[in-house]
Amino acid sequence: MGVADVVPLVDQHCHGVATGEVDPREWLSEAKNARRHPFRSLLGLSVRRWCAPVLGMPALAPAEEYLWRRAELGWHEVSKRLLTAAGVRHWFVDTGYVPGPVTSPAGLAELGGGTGHEVVRIEAVAEAVQKSAPTPEALLDKITAALHVAPAIAFKSIVAYRYGLALPAEQPDRAEALRAAAPWLRAKDTILTDPVLLAWLVHEAARVGAERGLPLQFHTGFGDADLRLSSTDPVLLTDFLRVARCQVVLLHCYPFHRNAAYLSHVFDNVHVDLGLTIPFVGVRSAAVLAEVLELAPFDSVLYSSDGNVLPELHYLGAALWRRAVNTLTDSWLAEEALTTADAERLAYGILGGNAARLHRL
Amino acid sequence: MGVADVVPLVDQHCHGVATGEVDPREWLSEAKNARRHPFRSLLGLSVRRWCAPVLGMPALAPAEEYLWRRAELGWHEVSKRLLTAAGVRHWFVDTGYVPGPVTSPAGLAELGGGTGHEVVRIEAVAEAVQKSAPTPEALLDKITAALHVAPAIAFKSIVAYRYGLALPAEQPDRAEALRAAAPWLRAKDTILTDPVLLAWLVHEAARVGAERGLPLQFHTGFGDADLRLSSTDPVLLTDFLRVARCQVVLLHCYPFHRNAAYLSHVFDNVHVDLGLTIPFVGVRSAAVLAEVLELAPFDSVLYSSDGNVLPELHYLGAALWRRAVNTLTDSWLAEEALTTADAERLAYGILGGNAARLHRL
Amino acid sequence: MGVADVVPLVDQHCHGVATGEVDPREWLSEAKNARRHPFRSLLGLSVRRWCAPVLGMPALAPAEEYLWRRAELGWHEVSKRLLTAAGVRHWFVDTGYVPGPVTSPAGLAELGGGTGHEVVRIEAVAEAVQKSAPTPEALLDKITAALHVAPAIAFKSIVAYRYGLALPAEQPDRAEALRAAAPWLRAKDTILTDPVLLAWLVHEAARVGAERGLPLQFHTGFGDADLRLSSTDPVLLTDFLRVARCQVVLLHCYPFHRNAAYLSHVFDNVHVDLGLTIPFVGVRSAAVLAEVLELAPFDSVLYSSDGNVLPELHYLGAALWRRAVNTLTDSWLAEEALTTADAERLAYGILGGNAARLHRL
Repeated sequence: MGVADVVPLVDQHCHGVATGEVDPREWLSEAKNARRHPFRSLLGLSVRRWCAPVLGMPALAPAEEYLWRRAELGWHEVSKRLLTAAGVRHWFVDTGYVPGPVTSPAGLAELGGGTGHEVVRIEAVAEAVQKSAPTPEALLDKITAALHVAPAIAFKSIVAYRYGLALPAEQPDRAEALRAAAPWLRAKDTILTDPVLLAWLVHEAARVGAERGLPLQFHTGFGDADLRLSSTDPVLLTDFLRVARCQVVLLHCYPFHRNAAYLSHVFDNVHVDLGLTIPFVGVRSAAVLAEVLELAPFDSVLYSSDGNVLPELHYLGAALWRRAVNTLTDSWLAEEALTTADAERLAYGILGGNAARLHRL
Repeated sequence: MGVADVVPLVDQHCHGVATGEVDPREWLSEAKNARRHPFRSLLGLSVRRWCAPVLGMPALAPAEEYLWRRAELGWHEVSKRLLTAAGVRHWFVDTGYVPGPVTSPAGLAELGGGTGHEVVRIEAVAEAVQKSAPTPEALLDKITAALHVAPAIAFKSIVAYRYGLALPAEQPDRAEALRAAAPWLRAKDTILTDPVLLAWLVHEAARVGAERGLPLQFHTGFGDADLRLSSTDPVLLTDFLRVARCQVVLLHCYPFHRNAAYLSHVFDNVHVDLGLTIPFVGVRSAAVLAEVLELAPFDSVLYSSDGNVLPELHYLGAALWRRAVNTLTDSWLAEEALTTADAERLAYGILGGNAARLHRL
Repeated sequence: MGVADVVPLVDQHCHGVATGEVDPREWLSEAKNARRHPFRSLLGLSVRRWCAPVLGMPALAPAEEYLWRRAELGWHEVSKRLLTAAGVRHWFVDTGYVPGPVTSPAGLAELGGGTGHEVVRIEAVAEAVQKSAPTPEALLDKITAALHVAPAIAFKSIVAYRYGLALPAEQPDRAEALRAAAPWLRAKDTILTDPVLLAWLVHEAARVGAERGLPLQFHTGFGDADLRLSSTDPVLLTDFLRVARCQVVLLHCYPFHRNAAYLSHVFDNVHVDLGLTIPFVGVRSAAVLAEVLELAPFDSVLYSSDGNVLPELHYLGAALWRRAVNTLTDSWLAEEALTTADAERLAYGILGGNAARLHRL
C-alpha cells in the first residue's frame, strides 16, 4: 500500500473507449498497420501484467488467452471492469478525434464511474465552423464565438501534428488571418494546416481561455508517424509561453519531458503531463517520471492516461501512474529525502489535486 | 546465469581487428590523439574488469599490467582469446573503413569462431568507382551495378559524417545527380561530400537493398570529432524513412537512442542498435538499453559491438549486451513484469534472433 | 563514509552570498516572481533535508520552521554555518552578476574558509569598458587589454543568454567588429547583444585565455526564463571548439549533459560541470551524474555549486556532489566495476583534483 493508492484521481486527458468490438492489437502501437507483434513491447507486457487480472485471468497470461478472454467478455464488460478498476473520479475527454464509434464523456463516466468532462480540440472547432462559414470574416468570428461557448473543461491543440510547436510570439493580425482563411474556405479539404491560421487559432484560444479560466493543452512529443518528432519539442513553444496569459498543459512530452519540466519550472502557468507516455513505457514509468521531477515544481505535474479506444490504456494510465508515484516516494522515503506527509501531498497533487485546482473542480 | 547467457549471438555491426601490434590506448577513445588517460573512463574500467580475466589476469588488474600482459601474449593470441570468448555465431563486418592492417570478415571468424559476413559501405563503393569512371553517366551506372553485385549481408551509410542525416524524401533525379557528379570526377579528392550525390546514393542503396532484401544501416549519433552531433540525430531521417522500402538499421544512436526507439516504434521497417554505445558506457549499459526499450518493439532491437581494431571492443560488446539484458530481465522478473519465457524470448531476439530473421540467416 | 567524504573540494563556479537578509523563497527557483511554493520541489526538499541540520534543526523540518530559524540566526551566521559545512578549499566566484549586495570572493572565503578566486565574466568586462571607450577602436583595444590584466582564475561567457552558443568557427575580423561596435557605443543600453561583437569577444577571450593559461567557462543548458533552451545546447559550440586553443569548461549543461559529455570525450580541452543542475535535482544527483560519466573521461568532470545569493546552494552543491559520487562509486564497487583505489581517484578528481590541475592551484 503506497501513498498513491488512496488519493482521488483526475485523468486530465483521455479519449473515449470503443462502443463495440475492436481488435486490441491495432491499438497497442502508434505505428500504422503495424505488422510487429503488438504484445512484444513494454506496453504489451503491461496489458498482460495489469489488465489480465481485472478480466479474471492470472497476471501475465499469454497474449492469445488475453485476446480470447477479452472477446468472451465483450467490449462492454471489459470496459466496465477496466474503467472502474482505474478508480478515476473525473475524466477529461478529448472529443475531437473520433476513430470510430466511441463513448462520449458522459458515456465513459457511466462505464467507469465518476464524472465526464469535455476537452475541446480547437482545430476541430475551426474545422466544424469552416463547413458553414460564408466568408473569411464569418469564419474568424464564428471560431471566436464557438470558443467562447464551447462546453469545455479545457482547450486542446494538436498544432504539433499540423505545423509544429514553433508558434510566433504574436497572434497574426486579423488581415493576415483573413488572407489565410480565404483559400481554406474554397478548399474541399477541411483539415486546417495553414500555419498563419493555426497560429491565429492557438493565440485566440489562449486569449479566450484566459478569459474563461480554461487551460490550453498541447500535444507535445511522440505520437504516430504523422508527426515529425523534432517539431514537437515543447521548447519550441517558448516564444508563445512568454506571452500566453492562459494556463498551459504540456501533454505526453516524451522524449522531451525534461525540456517540458524546465518550461514548467520557469513559467508559472505551465504544467507538465506524461499522458501517452506512461502506459507505453510500462515498467519504466517511475524512471521517466523521476526525470520530470528533476526540475518540475511538484504543483505543476499532472496525471493523465491519454487512453484511447481501448479501456486498457485508461486503466494502465491510472495503475502505472499510481505505481510510479509509489515507487519514487517509497525510495525517497527510504533515503529520508522527504517525510510521509510530503509523499502524501506529492501523490495527492500529481494524481488529481493539481488538476482539480487548475480546473476549479 | 541469466537468460542471455545461452543464446546464440549475431554481432550485426563491427569491423576487423588489427593484424599486428597496436597501442590499445589509441583506440579506447573517439578523440583524436587523446592526451587523457584512456583507462580513466567507463570503457577503460570495463576493459580491466571484463577483458583482463580472458587474458589470464585478475579482474580490474591495473592498466599498466593489462598493457604489459597484452603485449606479452601478442595480438594473435589476444584476439583469439577475446573473440572466442565473445561467443558470437555470426560477425557482420563493415569493410569500408581501414585504419591499418585489419582482418577480413573471414579472418575475424577464423580468429573468433562462427561465420563472417560483409557489410558494404555505400560511400566506399562510390569512391572506389569514382577512380575509374570516365563520365558522370558511367559513374552513376557503375555505382548502381556495384550495389547490385556487392557481396553484402547489409549496406551501410556514413552520410551522418559527410552531410548529416537530413536526407530529402525524394531521390535527386538523374540530371541533378549527373550535374553533381561532374565536378567530383574532376576533383583529385575522392572523398564523397556532395550532398546531392550523397542523397542520390543513399536512395539508390535503399532501392537496390529493397530489391535484394538487404537492410541499410546508418551511422547515427556519436562518433569521433569529425561529425557534428546535431546532424546525426536519427529523427532527421524521418522524410527518408517515410518512403524507404528497404529495412533500415539505426546504429549506435546515442544520445538520441530514445529518438531512434521512437522511429522503430512508428516505422515497421526500422530497427535500432546501440553498437558503439554499449562498450563505451560500460557499467551503464543496462540503463541505456532500458531507455531504448521504453518505446522500441522488442523485435526491433539488435545487438552489435561496433568493435574496431581492438578485439576488446568486440568482446565487451558481447559481454555487456548480455549483461545488460540479464540485468533488465532479472529486475523485471523480480517485479513480475514478465515471465521467464518472455525474458528468454526477449534475450534471444535482441542478441541474435532479430538479426537472424532480418538478414535471413 | 564514502570515498567522497575526505577529498578536498574546489567549487569551480559559484557566486557570492547575500550580505544581508533576503527571502530564500525568491531564490529557490529560476522562475521570475514564482508564485508556486518554492519548497515543493526536489531543491526545496534538499534544503529541508540537508541544510536544516546545519542550522540546528531536525532533517526535513517544515519549510515554515526552516524560514523562521533562518531569520532567527541571521544571514551572517547562516552563511557561516552552511559555507563552512561545505568544506570547500577553493571558491571560484563569478563577480559579473550582482543581483544585490553580495560577498566578494575574499568575503565568501572569509565566511566559509578556504581561498576565494575571481571568475571574470567577459561580457561584464566589455560592458564596463563600453561606458568610457571614446571610439570603436578604443573599445576593442580596451577589451583586449582588460582581458589581459583581469585578476582571473578563469573567464566565463554568458553568450548562451545573449545570442546562443552557435558561435562561428572564426573570430569576426577587426573591421567587422569595429562596424558592430559603433552603434553599441552610441546606444544608451550597455547590455551587449550584438552577435558579431559577442562572437569577437568570445574568440578574443579564448585567445587571451590560451596565452594566460586561463580556462573559459560557458553557461550552457537551463537557467532562467531569459534564455531559449534550444540555443544553449553545448553541441552548438562544436565549430568553436574545433579551433579553440584554450581550455573550455561547460557549466550546468542540463538537460544536454550527455551532449556535453560527448564534447568532453572528443575534445581534449573540453571539461564538463553540472553546477546549477546538482542542487536543483537533489535526490536525482547521482542519476544525472551517471549520465555524464557514460562518455565523459573521468579527468574532464568538475564539481561546482553555482551557488548564488543563498549559501544553501553552495552547501547543497558540495553535499549533493559528494553524495552523488559516493552513491555511484558504492554501487559500482558492489558490482566490482572498479577498485577502491579507482573510486578514490575518481572522487578526488571530480570534486577538486581535476579543477586544481586545470587551474594550476
